[in-house]
Amino acid sequence: MALRVVGVDPGLTRCGLAVVDVEPNRRASLVDVTVVGTSPDTPLDQRLLAIAEGIDAWLDQHCPDVLAVERVFSQLNVSTVMGTAQASGIVIVAAARRGIPVALHTPTEVKAAVTGSGQASKAAVGKMVAKILRLAEPPKPADAADAAALAITHGWRGAAPGSQASTGVTAGSSGLTPAQRAWAAAEAATRQRG
Amino acid sequence: MALRVVGVDPGLTRCGLAVVDVEPNRRASLVDVTVVGTSPDTPLDQRLLAIAEGIDAWLDQHCPDVLAVERVFSQLNVSTVMGTAQASGIVIVAAARRGIPVALHTPTEVKAAVTGSGQASKAAVGKMVAKILRLAEPPKPADAADAAALAITHGWRGAAPGSQASTGVTAGSSGLTPAQRAWAAAEAATRQRG
Repeated sequence: MALRVVGVDPGLTRCGLAVVDVEPNRRASLVDVTVVGTSPDTPLDQRLLAIAEGIDAWLDQHCPDVLAVERVFSQLNVSTVMGTAQASGIVIVAAARRGIPVALHTPTEVKAAVTGSGQASKAAVGKMVAKILRLAEPPKPADAADAAALAITHGWRGAAPGSQASTGVTAGSSGLTPAQRAWAAAEAATRQRG
Repeated sequence: MALRVVGVDPGLTRCGLAVVDVEPNRRASLVDVTVVGTSPDTPLDQRLLAIAEGIDAWLDQHCPDVLAVERVFSQLNVSTVMGTAQASGIVIVAAARRGIPVALHTPTEVKAAVTGSGQASKAAVGKMVAKILRLAEPPKPADAADAAALAITHGWRGAAPGSQASTGVTAGSSGLTPAQRAWAAAEAATRQRG
């Protein structure tokens, strides 16, 4: 009855993909993690196609209940933000084509959820991801750990009934998936007992 | 023996799509033009899915030789640039999936190609697009006219042999399409006569 979350840290050079199963009791287990990498020497259309084919295969293989992707802002680093936004658009459409709800989380939300501090370092996030997932060391590279952190963040936050709006789930029409509903019910029962 | 160019002015609220056939003698004819519109009230994933389905259908219907899309910069208007970049990524992948070469042109290049001035106004671009395509008035809204202007720009520039690098065609491995090769040959012959 776990919620299966695919977390995506979008990027043109390295796009981190993780699959995390989150139990109603918040226990999170890493199912799989990878990075789709493309070279800056490759033409843009072929780079974006590689990312599209990578996420397509990932979703078909793992059939997640929900996809969590980093909310992209127009950051200071303008040289990479366009490629990051293009990659995120492709990832979101891949989920939407399959009827998989999409949730957006900011980097600050992810850091706060995983480490307790919105200002945590990359290293601190990786360390907590390893601890949460009971791994000997953080998934590498950092994009893989960030993808796992996104999945954990959504798994923990998305569990609460009525939390859709605050977590930015955008596929509102379909509402909760069966697994999400089951989980919400389990969480509610846990709270009543507690 | 015309080169069929799909021009795309990417955007989340209005994504302009145009099909222009450009003859070796630079005569350009509008085949079709439309705008895929999505509402800001719609969840992001459904907006991006609508754009993906719109460009998929457009490419399958019109089978272009090349797709020309506006090169997105991190402009001052940060509230819309992320959505524009996401839409452009989706459009580029739609072409790449079909083996259609993708060319990127800056707004300045487009204005210069169509009006002779890189600082031309929207109205001036629309007016020249109408004149070039022998239309009674510019395609509306402006996104549709911009998409047509992009197609014209690429049709005129892409015609010249060896111009791929400068016009930003990114699908380098496949080189020129048969139509592009034929056109390049015709252009070369014209230059020799002139």
